Amino acid sequence: MKRCLILFSFLFSANLVYAQVPATKTPFAGKWLATLDFFGTPLYLKVDLNQQEEGLKGTFGGDPLEGKVNGSQYHFLAKDRNGGTEEATGRLENGTLYGDVVETRGDDLAHPFKYTFTAVLAPARSTAAPQRHEFAPTIFYRQFSPLNKPVLRINPGDTIHTTTVDAGGVDGNNVRRVLGGNPQTGPFYVETAMPGDTLVVHINRLRLNRDWAGSDDALVDRATDSNLAVKVKGNGKGIRWHLDTAAGTATPEKPSEHLAKYTIPLRPMLGCVATAVGPAQAPPPTGDSGYYGGNMDFNEITEGATVYLPVSNPGALLYFGDGHAAQGDGELNGNALETSMDVEVTVDVIPGKRPPQPRVENGSTIIATGIAGSLDDAFRAATSNMASWLEDDYKLTPSEIAQVLGTASQYKVAEVADRNVNLVLKLDKERLKTLTQVQK
Amino acid sequence: MKRCLILFSFLFSANLVYAQVPATKTPFAGKWLATLDFFGTPLYLKVDLNQQEEGLKGTFGGDPLEGKVNGSQYHFLAKDRNGGTEEATGRLENGTLYGDVVETRGDDLAHPFKYTFTAVLAPARSTAAPQRHEFAPTIFYRQFSPLNKPVLRINPGDTIHTTTVDAGGVDGNNVRRVLGGNPQTGPFYVETAMPGDTLVVHINRLRLNRDWAGSDDALVDRATDSNLAVKVKGNGKGIRWHLDTAAGTATPEKPSEHLAKYTIPLRPMLGCVATAVGPAQAPPPTGDSGYYGGNMDFNEITEGATVYLPVSNPGALLYFGDGHAAQGDGELNGNALETSMDVEVTVDVIPGKRPPQPRVENGSTIIATGIAGSLDDAFRAATSNMASWLEDDYKLTPSEIAQVLGTASQYKVAEVADRNVNLVLKLDKERLKTLTQVQK
Amino acid sequence: MKRCLILFSFLFSANLVYAQVPATKTPFAGKWLATLDFFGTPLYLKVDLNQQEEGLKGTFGGDPLEGKVNGSQYHFLAKDRNGGTEEATGRLENGTLYGDVVETRGDDLAHPFKYTFTAVLAPARSTAAPQRHEFAPTIFYRQFSPLNKPVLRINPGDTIHTTTVDAGGVDGNNVRRVLGGNPQTGPFYVETAMPGDTLVVHINRLRLNRDWAGSDDALVDRATDSNLAVKVKGNGKGIRWHLDTAAGTATPEKPSEHLAKYTIPLRPMLGCVATAVGPAQAPPPTGDSGYYGGNMDFNEITEGATVYLPVSNPGALLYFGDGHAAQGDGELNGNALETSMDVEVTVDVIPGKRPPQPRVENGSTIIATGIAGSLDDAFRAATSNMASWLEDDYKLTPSEIAQVLGTASQYKVAEVADRNVNLVLKLDKERLKTLTQVQK
Amino acid sequence: MKRCLILFSFLFSANLVYAQVPATKTPFAGKWLATLDFFGTPLYLKVDLNQQEEGLKGTFGGDPLEGKVNGSQYHFLAKDRNGGTEEATGRLENGTLYGDVVETRGDDLAHPFKYTFTAVLAPARSTAAPQRHEFAPTIFYRQFSPLNKPVLRINPGDTIHTTTVDAGGVDGNNVRRVLGGNPQTGPFYVETAMPGDTLVVHINRLRLNRDWAGSDDALVDRATDSNLAVKVKGNGKGIRWHLDTAAGTATPEKPSEHLAKYTIPLRPMLGCVATAVGPAQAPPPTGDSGYYGGNMDFNEITEGATVYLPVSNPGALLYFGDGHAAQGDGELNGNALETSMDVEVTVDVIPGKRPPQPRVENGSTIIATGIAGSLDDAFRAATSNMASWLEDDYKLTPSEIAQVLGTASQYKVAEVADRNVNLVLKLDKERLKTLTQVQK
Repeated sequence: MKRCLILFSFLFSANLVYAQVPATKTPFAGKWLATLDFFGTPLYLKVDLNQQEEGLKGTFGGDPLEGKVNGSQYHFLAKDRNGGTEEATGRLENGTLYGDVVETRGDDLAHPFKYTFTAVLAPARSTAAPQRHEFAPTIFYRQFSPLNKPVLRINPGDTIHTTTVDAGGVDGNNVRRVLGGNPQTGPFYVETAMPGDTLVVHINRLRLNRDWAGSDDALVDRATDSNLAVKVKGNGKGIRWHLDTAAGTATPEKPSEHLAKYTIPLRPMLGCVATAVGPAQAPPPTGDSGYYGGNMDFNEITEGATVYLPVSNPGALLYFGDGHAAQGDGELNGNALETSMDVEVTVDVIPGKRPPQPRVENGSTIIATGIAGSLDDAFRAATSNMASWLEDDYKLTPSEIAQVLGTASQYKVAEVADRNVNLVLKLDKERLKTLTQVQK
Repeated sequence: MKRCLILFSFLFSANLVYAQVPATKTPFAGKWLATLDFFGTPLYLKVDLNQQEEGLKGTFGGDPLEGKVNGSQYHFLAKDRNGGTEEATGRLENGTLYGDVVETRGDDLAHPFKYTFTAVLAPARSTAAPQRHEFAPTIFYRQFSPLNKPVLRINPGDTIHTTTVDAGGVDGNNVRRVLGGNPQTGPFYVETAMPGDTLVVHINRLRLNRDWAGSDDALVDRATDSNLAVKVKGNGKGIRWHLDTAAGTATPEKPSEHLAKYTIPLRPMLGCVATAVGPAQAPPPTGDSGYYGGNMDFNEITEGATVYLPVSNPGALLYFGDGHAAQGDGELNGNALETSMDVEVTVDVIPGKRPPQPRVENGSTIIATGIAGSLDDAFRAATSNMASWLEDDYKLTPSEIAQVLGTASQYKVAEVADRNVNLVLKLDKERLKTLTQVQK
Repeated sequence: MKRCLILFSFLFSANLVYAQVPATKTPFAGKWLATLDFFGTPLYLKVDLNQQEEGLKGTFGGDPLEGKVNGSQYHFLAKDRNGGTEEATGRLENGTLYGDVVETRGDDLAHPFKYTFTAVLAPARSTAAPQRHEFAPTIFYRQFSPLNKPVLRINPGDTIHTTTVDAGGVDGNNVRRVLGGNPQTGPFYVETAMPGDTLVVHINRLRLNRDWAGSDDALVDRATDSNLAVKVKGNGKGIRWHLDTAAGTATPEKPSEHLAKYTIPLRPMLGCVATAVGPAQAPPPTGDSGYYGGNMDFNEITEGATVYLPVSNPGALLYFGDGHAAQGDGELNGNALETSMDVEVTVDVIPGKRPPQPRVENGSTIIATGIAGSLDDAFRAATSNMASWLEDDYKLTPSEIAQVLGTASQYKVAEVADRNVNLVLKLDKERLKTLTQVQK
Repeated sequence: MKRCLILFSFLFSANLVYAQVPATKTPFAGKWLATLDFFGTPLYLKVDLNQQEEGLKGTFGGDPLEGKVNGSQYHFLAKDRNGGTEEATGRLENGTLYGDVVETRGDDLAHPFKYTFTAVLAPARSTAAPQRHEFAPTIFYRQFSPLNKPVLRINPGDTIHTTTVDAGGVDGNNVRRVLGGNPQTGPFYVETAMPGDTLVVHINRLRLNRDWAGSDDALVDRATDSNLAVKVKGNGKGIRWHLDTAAGTATPEKPSEHLAKYTIPLRPMLGCVATAVGPAQAPPPTGDSGYYGGNMDFNEITEGATVYLPVSNPGALLYFGDGHAAQGDGELNGNALETSMDVEVTVDVIPGKRPPQPRVENGSTIIATGIAGSLDDAFRAATSNMASWLEDDYKLTPSEIAQVLGTASQYKVAEVADRNVNLVLKLDKERLKTLTQVQK
């Protein structure tokens, strides 16, 4: 699995800023996105070239390179930190860079392997005014796949108004549209978004569009010790909830004795927001979550929240769905109050840097998710995600990071119902305001 | 370890209500608390006797018994569910019940063993008006031990005003009083509190009594993945914080560059509130936590909060200490803002029932702690603790418990810095108000 | 997600034995496998019919049904335990049962939904002599998908002789054949294997077919605490091993100082053995593991071992690959000694029962795997898997299961390198021989 | 808790070799063990002094010091890495070094605190021939406490022959001697053993001394998922086993139907081997385990095994007990086959280095334990413990450590029944023999 991993790491190790480069005397110079055909699988790779007359310097998938150009022809040699090399030869033609690569591993110089790439300069952001797109979905996907055809192409800054079906595939008109399992609206292709960027999804509006939600009375295994497992062993039936948007409440449709007046406030949220996973990876089901976001089931992804996700493919390929009318922390029943939604989001791109795991922001807090196979690992992941945030955006030293985390952290369990759990770390913006921004 | 466990379970399986019984024609009748001398270790056991003329019925450590009295003499036989027996003979003299017991295990009838007990009727609650005690501590303990001599005896309903030293043993006058490690004020003996009861500790007042706190810039292992561990490997120095009670803020005394204006709000809390552990158990250090409470490090144990703890010894033996001027969730640095405190608590007893783990209540929420060796186990423990609460006090069915937990749970990580972690489950009282109280 | 789950559970809840039924006066009688077209996704469902003249009884996806036939037409109504119903009408034509179904949920009778199915009688096992198939792979898959076209169809009892590429996609002739990530040989379609069955894979022969393996010197995150993470932070380079089949040993090709003579014994194993996951589920990558087996990385899946896997699709769809010349427990480097293999397996089917997770058997032990997101959950899963085995095949009571597990369990960590870990529970066959087989 | 930790770290950070220094012209020179009276708690501290005429250099609790002597008087100043200081003045009198210390924290120079110490030169190992001690225990302790009076003082190299009671306190004559909970034989004071050393306990002989053992049929919570918890909810009764030393087998005394002939081999082991914990720490109960060993419940601590434990007090204070006639991995029933034992151990001391957690060795393997609150943390602890072993004793580099662990690790779950779990990492001595010993 080694080489695969090495190639893969090209994409994500470098946090370079793309920028359009005009045609000049140094036509090779610029930030290129190379697409490799690797035994049938496309892989993406950043190639960063500085041209000085006939000399080439820069990086190839993060590895430093040196080479030369001769008219439209070029040749360079890149070296990785383990003594391996990538030697590329090719040409520049009509704005496309073609290359033949011979790669060797440092521990296996005797067995080079070969592949080809084509590269284009990273596109420039459109200067057109932002648009609002009305989008009525006709197809719903059940994997966060880079292979699904985009349903719409939009520019950064644009707004999408659309709807989502519930986790079981039923829409706002009570029509079943698709097999259940969190079918998604999308994917939306966002122009200029490139692997290594951050996709910004701001939820302008998130409203109910029908008067009921489905749930159940089970408790997921992660919530039950032996005593509680024995207590609830007979549970497991479906519970329908009535949604009263005027009153802002939800109540069980056929409540049992002690719940005759039980009422919870509506708090619509999106269970899933995701970018497609990288092309070398098997697409995860829409019930799963990970670095790409996905089924995070976090009850603060509500109207007004902004979600930051890493981009792994050109166009980012945004998916969302799995609306919940309300959800307790953890989504203990396996199902929250599952319902369809009316959704409006504004989408943007931050080029050249990507978070290790999803991040969320609202008016009062910044939030680092920790998505992992256990709460203990998720706790570490959330803390590490926030530490990187404080280091990257606030320039804090390790000692300062520890002091801020130690005094201001708020940890909350978002979800324990799916394969991965989600545990989040929140910091109050009031605390962050007192940090000194130092230029470095 | 078997027999030990069996004996131990006597104490905690039964939720009986103690009540004083007047001297009557049935002097054996009543709720007795027996103290066993078990190879030098005192053990407590509930003996519940109904006398009808010369007939005795009831329970001995939860096992059903039948027997007879003859004047001041008695004899009874109790049977456990595994076929074991306890045969007791003895006398009632001056209000004390004396007994000689022969116990057999169901699988080992050939090897009975013997012990003696003395029992007294559970005391009645005083009818005197509640008192307020000014208490200046002179000794501080470092274990939640039942063997430490009580520093004060109080009645249920009484109030204690006192002080605590910081985790390192330094008091409000900057005088080191004791070796560090969360030295505690107490233990306070609460009259009528008996094993199987709940101790109620309401924090009336919790104020700072000096202008600094000690902390550090380490991150505990449970918070660091490999990346973050490498990042903070050089951390570990002490950080002193200035406490400004007028402004209600804390700031580092010698802040580094980016923290020059970093400010956090004061939120005084008690890191430790505990009852002594049972007499057969080795006393835990005051850095540990468990069913008895202890070093829970939960930043909502503040002024106005009420803590519910199980009673494992006559008098409950209340300890508290380890004040924090403020603490982020998790107590990530290992030390919060450690400082001395001025404390006033009012203490009460709920006879005959005990929570499986500590519970906390404030004006807006009820809170079940989950204390365990990992966050995953703590999550299960907190959920099970709250499920028992909803079952016992709100009479919910398993299906209803699941519906309420699924829609209203709020999970928060209290602490990951000590041997056990603490993860809590909170329910908003607004939700609970809509539950129907049904008489059963 | 509710309905999806309900449908899904049809497949796996029942452990029925398929058997061919001859054409008779009761042509509807028999064990049918229905394929549903569910919004484009095929789902499988067992329909078990007893016909008595014009009366029909039986089960539909496990739910009891009653109905009538009229010539080639039929009609039945099935009821689930939550008050929902499935009403089917259709015809029998040329041995295929066609049906139109209207399904309602018990809590939502107002919104029925509709789908169609076609069903065939479960096929009978071939009586032909077992065959040995020489199979040279030309395509390698990177997901345990039910959608990949079978490369070969075989009968139960047949033997396949073939080869596998290494985890990076390189074959025994040092030719890269495919992108890395554990590309698999297969899938093999096994006639008569039906959802709900067990696939039996006996590894007759497992031999090296080249003289080197690739590995590295990293340590995966699950193996490092903070101290060890700091210690190995500079690790991460590839390590090539020389495989000496004559000597039966592996040695680093370019060993560092202290490893100049470091030698480990060869112990060829298959990292991956899997059946395809069910059709409603997103296919997992070949680096993942679960109930279907997959990348279990267990170093006792060697020549002579038998692997038992649940069948989720007609034909089972067997995959295998990811050969390791040797591997320490845990696969701590992320890569074991990754190499290509010469493989011979004999495949069989146990109809009508399926294990909850994979099981393995060799000459001396039976082994229950526990595959989960943490070692703590995997420990529970392995114990539960073995408890079911002792209950189902040895008819032990819960008390007996506990006594055997308590005295004979051997737990070993198989793997911690992938998304799921694998922790196995082994029982010595010597212990099992002393169990009394009681007819029940 | 800060200062306490700082003091504590003195003891364990340094790996110095003690050696007796003859009275010379430089009477201050040598390795001293200082005992601090710290608010009533004794603490130990290493003071390492080099004297050159009137100049003093060396370390005080690991911190570098400089000072001067004037006749029998001395004065020195030590500095810690955080800018704190320890200033000592005192005298040398009759071989005892007396000191008054003023300590300041780097971040709190304004609040020094004071304590005194007395120090003696580390004793030299006796040159007398090793002795064999017959020891009949009369008292049994239930905590691994440094405060229990030693029952016997022995020299390194000496052998103790004694007995242990079972976990419930019953001896080889079926006499109950003490309350249950793993009561221990010991503590034994081992001359010359000093904090920072390693205690070596070789089990020469471990034999049964009665014909029965007690166990039960429960399954501990860590072994049960929801399904299995429901399955075994009625379990929990005691099971007595017959021990047949002639046949080498154990069988249930009153077996149920399927266990009528169930037989397991005897494999006597010690559940507990421990040194006392440090004096500043609350003594753990004998059901607990940790860096000091304790209730490790590892079924390879059998006759012929050697256990290595860190020394935290002068004399080490060795405890052992909790014999098991046999035990499956994990001790799933909470009780193994609990019985009394005839024990012979030979004890030795390795001065100046201590393992981070217990280690075990037998004829074929070296074994690093991982003792922690979850299996995931225990896995990390065991790996880190073994990595340190390979680094310290075999001088391997981080890359080499990873290669050896990746190819040779054997992980086994020892125990999940107590507060901490124990998961061990074993390396075959055959592998270690091929490592090159390089002088450094």
